[in-house]
Amino acid sequence: MELTTTPPTAAESVASGSAGPRVSAVTRLLISCPDRPGIVAAVSRFLHESGANIVSSDQHTTDPRGGSFFMRMEFHLPLDRAAHAAFEQRFGNEVGVPFEMGWQMWPAATPKRVAVLVSRYDHCLLDILWRHRREELEADVGLVISNHPDRKADVEAFGLAYEHVPVPKGGKPEAEDRMIELLAGRFDLVILARYMQILSADFLDRLAIPVINIHHSFLPAFAGAGPYQRAREQGVKLVGATAHYVTPELDAGPIIEQDVMRVTHRGDAATLERLGADIERTVFARAVKWHCEDRVLLHGNTTIVF
Amino acid sequence: MELTTTPPTAAESVASGSAGPRVSAVTRLLISCPDRPGIVAAVSRFLHESGANIVSSDQHTTDPRGGSFFMRMEFHLPLDRAAHAAFEQRFGNEVGVPFEMGWQMWPAATPKRVAVLVSRYDHCLLDILWRHRREELEADVGLVISNHPDRKADVEAFGLAYEHVPVPKGGKPEAEDRMIELLAGRFDLVILARYMQILSADFLDRLAIPVINIHHSFLPAFAGAGPYQRAREQGVKLVGATAHYVTPELDAGPIIEQDVMRVTHRGDAATLERLGADIERTVFARAVKWHCEDRVLLHGNTTIVF
Amino acid sequence: MELTTTPPTAAESVASGSAGPRVSAVTRLLISCPDRPGIVAAVSRFLHESGANIVSSDQHTTDPRGGSFFMRMEFHLPLDRAAHAAFEQRFGNEVGVPFEMGWQMWPAATPKRVAVLVSRYDHCLLDILWRHRREELEADVGLVISNHPDRKADVEAFGLAYEHVPVPKGGKPEAEDRMIELLAGRFDLVILARYMQILSADFLDRLAIPVINIHHSFLPAFAGAGPYQRAREQGVKLVGATAHYVTPELDAGPIIEQDVMRVTHRGDAATLERLGADIERTVFARAVKWHCEDRVLLHGNTTIVF
Amino acid sequence: MELTTTPPTAAESVASGSAGPRVSAVTRLLISCPDRPGIVAAVSRFLHESGANIVSSDQHTTDPRGGSFFMRMEFHLPLDRAAHAAFEQRFGNEVGVPFEMGWQMWPAATPKRVAVLVSRYDHCLLDILWRHRREELEADVGLVISNHPDRKADVEAFGLAYEHVPVPKGGKPEAEDRMIELLAGRFDLVILARYMQILSADFLDRLAIPVINIHHSFLPAFAGAGPYQRAREQGVKLVGATAHYVTPELDAGPIIEQDVMRVTHRGDAATLERLGADIERTVFARAVKWHCEDRVLLHGNTTIVF
Repeated sequence: MELTTTPPTAAESVASGSAGPRVSAVTRLLISCPDRPGIVAAVSRFLHESGANIVSSDQHTTDPRGGSFFMRMEFHLPLDRAAHAAFEQRFGNEVGVPFEMGWQMWPAATPKRVAVLVSRYDHCLLDILWRHRREELEADVGLVISNHPDRKADVEAFGLAYEHVPVPKGGKPEAEDRMIELLAGRFDLVILARYMQILSADFLDRLAIPVINIHHSFLPAFAGAGPYQRAREQGVKLVGATAHYVTPELDAGPIIEQDVMRVTHRGDAATLERLGADIERTVFARAVKWHCEDRVLLHGNTTIVF
Repeated sequence: MELTTTPPTAAESVASGSAGPRVSAVTRLLISCPDRPGIVAAVSRFLHESGANIVSSDQHTTDPRGGSFFMRMEFHLPLDRAAHAAFEQRFGNEVGVPFEMGWQMWPAATPKRVAVLVSRYDHCLLDILWRHRREELEADVGLVISNHPDRKADVEAFGLAYEHVPVPKGGKPEAEDRMIELLAGRFDLVILARYMQILSADFLDRLAIPVINIHHSFLPAFAGAGPYQRAREQGVKLVGATAHYVTPELDAGPIIEQDVMRVTHRGDAATLERLGADIERTVFARAVKWHCEDRVLLHGNTTIVF
Repeated sequence: MELTTTPPTAAESVASGSAGPRVSAVTRLLISCPDRPGIVAAVSRFLHESGANIVSSDQHTTDPRGGSFFMRMEFHLPLDRAAHAAFEQRFGNEVGVPFEMGWQMWPAATPKRVAVLVSRYDHCLLDILWRHRREELEADVGLVISNHPDRKADVEAFGLAYEHVPVPKGGKPEAEDRMIELLAGRFDLVILARYMQILSADFLDRLAIPVINIHHSFLPAFAGAGPYQRAREQGVKLVGATAHYVTPELDAGPIIEQDVMRVTHRGDAATLERLGADIERTVFARAVKWHCEDRVLLHGNTTIVF
Repeated sequence: MELTTTPPTAAESVASGSAGPRVSAVTRLLISCPDRPGIVAAVSRFLHESGANIVSSDQHTTDPRGGSFFMRMEFHLPLDRAAHAAFEQRFGNEVGVPFEMGWQMWPAATPKRVAVLVSRYDHCLLDILWRHRREELEADVGLVISNHPDRKADVEAFGLAYEHVPVPKGGKPEAEDRMIELLAGRFDLVILARYMQILSADFLDRLAIPVINIHHSFLPAFAGAGPYQRAREQGVKLVGATAHYVTPELDAGPIIEQDVMRVTHRGDAATLERLGADIERTVFARAVKWHCEDRVLLHGNTTIVF
């Protein structure tokens, strides 16, 4: 799996009139490549000589020898559209190619375009929409799709569009076709705010952008359905939630964030589920926020979170 | 599995001269029985009419209808030996039998007699021995057994006996026989402070007292060996430890306590193991302390912790 | 300060047709009195002989000798209105008076009638209203009062009444008079979901029901205004929130619940405030829920939370 | 206050035969200076052109404009003694001076030389000595000084020297003189593992190396003595511990680390103190470890912890 979003060039963002000149001039650079001496020096020299000022920088090497190198930088570089595109091209030629980098630049002023899929539960959905309204997320939520009509009024109260795409028995191919129509090319990220249908590998392929799911258990414990009931039967003293990227293999994609809560013998499965809703919405919101801030890099089936 | 310790009668404890009269007069009562009206009233009336003052009380019913009832009480009742034995017998006849109770009384002044099994790791062992020396545990640690000689000096520095019982290839039956000689009838609890040998079902049978193990993972995730390495490969963001009663089925006995710690992409398996030592010793100490204070009741394969 | 709510008699609740017969038959009993032998026995015997079945029970004694005794019981007792009133009267005469008890019974089926005061911040308000809608709170939120018009649409989207009671300079007495008109005799609890006006001692007197506030710091550290800025200047590594009952002395009433979050040098005051909103709404919701479930007893300027 | 340790040059460390060539070749660089464009580029270019490979890098800017810049880098550079000294001098001339840097290099292979001051409590002392034995700390604990003889056997069991320096009434000046004799010029760090004497400003001046204290409360709440008792009287629901650098103003130096634990109405002051010991030793060990790994930079009265 790759993070296949095609970012707008920083140049496009700079050119758009809506964001002020100061913010739009910050670009985020994500890099992954084989580790070897001189990467940081090459990147920072290139940026400095191009007139950029590095605002923040994080790096990680997976192994002291023969490992992979990951870096996230934010730099300030006020350029007009054409100049920024040329700058990106030069970066690729002069730094990216020599170091065999996978790299991507994203203009900090451009929020990710996000679509939400949800079934009936409201807790993750409402928490995300509320944070969106507070502008906590660096996301532009443009659409909510559900296989049920239940949450329509909630969503519209936030001034957002709600599409009901039912998934009748045997009707998943048509439903997925309809969702591709609604989503393809229009969004940078899809988030599953407790969407209870399994997405097909073909759908994920055609969608071709990252999908984040919230699983209501502390994976890999209790993967699959009914985790609160199973947690209770097994007598565990903590239950939790996991936000992960969706892959064709169910509940097994790269984990972005997890958290747990303490439970006791007093809580029945319904109580655990109620308490669990709090931890689910928190973990989900963190994962979505971090993704939208370009803080999550993939490394095989795991993540680097800067 | 049952908590098969035969407690000293409260009377025996009262009669022993070493503990002062005030403390020794506190008795802990543990009850489990089918739930039905009148249990609390019957117990508290019996205690009150016998001259006891209830110091603390906790109860739990597993299900509003048809469930099981669990209770832990501490009461103050200064009686001499004979009178206390008679009191216990009357309780059984007048309250225990009519309500089909499993019940047990334990004199609070009498610490549990505890033996420790350990292999090479020192962190859980030393933490328990420090807490023992600080008198945090209501335990009387009388012996440390190890299949290695490594920790002998550490243990003897605490003034405690250390028995080296090696387990050579094929020699487990003889080793277990030797351990039964050392343990049987002399202890109320055995604790495994990272003991890396699997105890046979036959050994557990012959031992016939509770055994607490610390597992270096957040069960049921990563049961078995090498959990830190596997956690890292799976990219989980939290790893943890689990203290549980030992049953013949490996790593599957009733869980007493669990906790987790946050990990990031920065920690390699060795770092996780180092951090894990802290969470292991904490979880282990809590479980041992709670058991020694008679706070843990069994309910099928789960526990009630008051 | 006393918890001065006049609860409906359990009888009134039983008589009201709306709640089903099973739930309405559960009564919560709160007791505080000087500790002495026989309290539990007397209470549980009285309840048993009256036909009640004790569903849960918690107790606490503040000091082994000469302390105060606190108890919370839930019992099941299906009686009609008149019979329940007689039962309560008998309890007072036969148990309450002899043990010098402060006591109170509350029918579990009757939610607390709650009014919310808020200024401009939405996070605590919306979280409570969501939980209210999800029926997590055992509360019947009947009114939101604000000194600003900002949250009117949010509140009305939940189908709830919103009263704008401005507090112009010098106009606090009139504002408080108006609020008393709106609140007096109609509510069991007032909660301050970030209400930025100080309530006068006279207002609290006239209101005569408990008031819960959320303070945006870990009291007693950083009492007063601007805690996030001050926390940052002092370089603390954790900041938190405190829910407490309101007393005439500012930010000094009995604490119900507190929690903290970890902060680093990276967060500026605005970041801390954003993160703080999450911990504030969590702590506030817990305190309100626990109060509505009759889990909080006062002991001087501290609380017992069962 | 400044971190006044004079570090060994990386060259000295490289020259010492005991550490293997690979580890000793890693140097840590700490930088603080006014923020301005080009710092990262200049540092990384200088290092790269000197043949160094940057292993890890963290940076922080306190304010987007006009702020201070802090950086911690680890780089690998195998040089002999003379060459490394020349390298450090060139760094100062070519990078340090132009950017008005405070900077320091420390060879990762050289542990900090640490002395411990303690009174009677054993929990922080033993935890540190045990971690020292496990080689968790990058510290070389060379001496324990106490104003009491109580912990002598404990310390000597770890093979360490124990100096009893009593502080009789009126005898503090002589005691501090004696401690200066024992400490001055021989250590890089002094840690107070529950040392109950206040150190004079004059002593701190003469000592001229960092001193870390563990305070048994969540500062700034409950500064001074008896925090557990005061926490209980105030009814707080969390108590904690704070590790901080010692300054002449009591309990007010820069905070390195804090943590808390949940407490309930059930715990008396003795229980809180027992629980508190666990949080104290944990917070203390983290702070000492981070300092020894050169992760803590001072910024006024606060810290940056990388």
